[in-house]
Amino acid sequence: MAGKSTSEAPPFSYELRVRYGECDAQGIIFNANYLAYVDVVLTEIWRQTMGSYDSLLETGVDTVVGEVNMRFLAPGRFDDVLRIEGGFDGLGTTSTTLKLQFRRGNDLLVESDVRYVFVDLDNWQKAPIPEKVREGLAPLLLR
Amino acid sequence: MAGKSTSEAPPFSYELRVRYGECDAQGIIFNANYLAYVDVVLTEIWRQTMGSYDSLLETGVDTVVGEVNMRFLAPGRFDDVLRIEGGFDGLGTTSTTLKLQFRRGNDLLVESDVRYVFVDLDNWQKAPIPEKVREGLAPLLLR
Amino acid sequence: MAGKSTSEAPPFSYELRVRYGECDAQGIIFNANYLAYVDVVLTEIWRQTMGSYDSLLETGVDTVVGEVNMRFLAPGRFDDVLRIEGGFDGLGTTSTTLKLQFRRGNDLLVESDVRYVFVDLDNWQKAPIPEKVREGLAPLLLR
Amino acid sequence: MAGKSTSEAPPFSYELRVRYGECDAQGIIFNANYLAYVDVVLTEIWRQTMGSYDSLLETGVDTVVGEVNMRFLAPGRFDDVLRIEGGFDGLGTTSTTLKLQFRRGNDLLVESDVRYVFVDLDNWQKAPIPEKVREGLAPLLLR
Repeated sequence: MAGKSTSEAPPFSYELRVRYGECDAQGIIFNANYLAYVDVVLTEIWRQTMGSYDSLLETGVDTVVGEVNMRFLAPGRFDDVLRIEGGFDGLGTTSTTLKLQFRRGNDLLVESDVRYVFVDLDNWQKAPIPEKVREGLAPLLLR
Repeated sequence: MAGKSTSEAPPFSYELRVRYGECDAQGIIFNANYLAYVDVVLTEIWRQTMGSYDSLLETGVDTVVGEVNMRFLAPGRFDDVLRIEGGFDGLGTTSTTLKLQFRRGNDLLVESDVRYVFVDLDNWQKAPIPEKVREGLAPLLLR
Repeated sequence: MAGKSTSEAPPFSYELRVRYGECDAQGIIFNANYLAYVDVVLTEIWRQTMGSYDSLLETGVDTVVGEVNMRFLAPGRFDDVLRIEGGFDGLGTTSTTLKLQFRRGNDLLVESDVRYVFVDLDNWQKAPIPEKVREGLAPLLLR
Repeated sequence: MAGKSTSEAPPFSYELRVRYGECDAQGIIFNANYLAYVDVVLTEIWRQTMGSYDSLLETGVDTVVGEVNMRFLAPGRFDDVLRIEGGFDGLGTTSTTLKLQFRRGNDLLVESDVRYVFVDLDNWQKAPIPEKVREGLAPLLLR
């Protein structure tokens, strides 16, 4: 029996360096900044999958955050290079969840699940995920 | 007698006004800033219950965020006055969860549950909640 | 001899409390946040002089920052209550400079001069300061 | 012919991409964030000249911002790649000024002059620039 690899590479990975101003008086990353990092990652995902965030908007939709779940396992610090990796947990009719892990080397610092709801640019109401977006995101689906 | 009111006042309430720089190009509060607001509320909770955040530190502990769960129901906007209200969902041995609702008038915008873990200031390891802190937080427990 | 009072009250004054997340790993206010505070003050100035920032926009103009000059004399810290006071240094045809002092008690922490340029909301080009705005700002002129 | 090149390469250059959350409701970079960018550049300068910011601290000094002067010529926008270039305008006894230009392609968006004062890590008082730091920064001096 083959068994399931536990170290399968995640479909998306991005690195960024922690800025001084992103750390608080405790000397660690201020927790709100992880959500700002998630947003940076989402921008890079649109770049990789659609060409750019503007190309997403051209399909007539944008996304808003519907739900956030984060677990903090170890503190990140100034000048750390974070490797943020993960992918999407299926594509619903109008929403999808981006599951990310924040790592420093082999250490897992934070896990985040952010559910994005697609909204129509005209009326800001829930909208089905456009076919072009589904195709773009398909390679980033977690198995 | 009538039974339990469903509109019982939450044990803690705080108001703040949304700043221009806290809104993004969509014209709404950038999602990461809600976590920054939670931190502002926590500071005010230490002021009300312990005198100040410094008084918390004098008990030999600090808190770190262990887990965050947020639900976004409606967008907040520039210059909105947010009423942030809630309390703690019980006091565990070394952690507690602050449950907050962000409201604009009667509209519920965001709900957040943030679990704080108490840590020893000397070694940054999990620590029991000091008795003085338990007494201070008692009036803010949700029933 | 009468002489000129050196302690004349500035035409505008506003207080705010320093948030934990606004301080950096040195434990002092991250310098960029003073500019964010200036923006908070400007919003309050529009509220006091025009009713609201929206009322400014209704005159057909907005402002953009043209120039910033800041001198840092002493560090502000977490939970400090800053008193930010000052006024405008004359009203030019299309711009004006807001001169502010950031104080903690009697200590002067930071001085800032921010020149705002009025721009037409339609084409984002320099625009004369509308008469209604001139009247609103008149009481905030420094002598 | 000798002549002085007018397009001489600045001694330091760094690129960064504008994040969504760094833009405000006007859709342009919130002005305070340019100061945050300057701080990012300073970190990279310590990395290039001293190995790291920690290596600076090991010489017994840190820097605080003494003065900021910025001129805003054109707005930066979400997803722009900013090229931030410049160098130091001489090294005084205890301070130096970092002069930077923020460019998008050939467009000059912002110019900033930030004067840093060196302080002793023990007492936070003004301190002479250590010889090792002078040697490190020498290649970044503007002629």
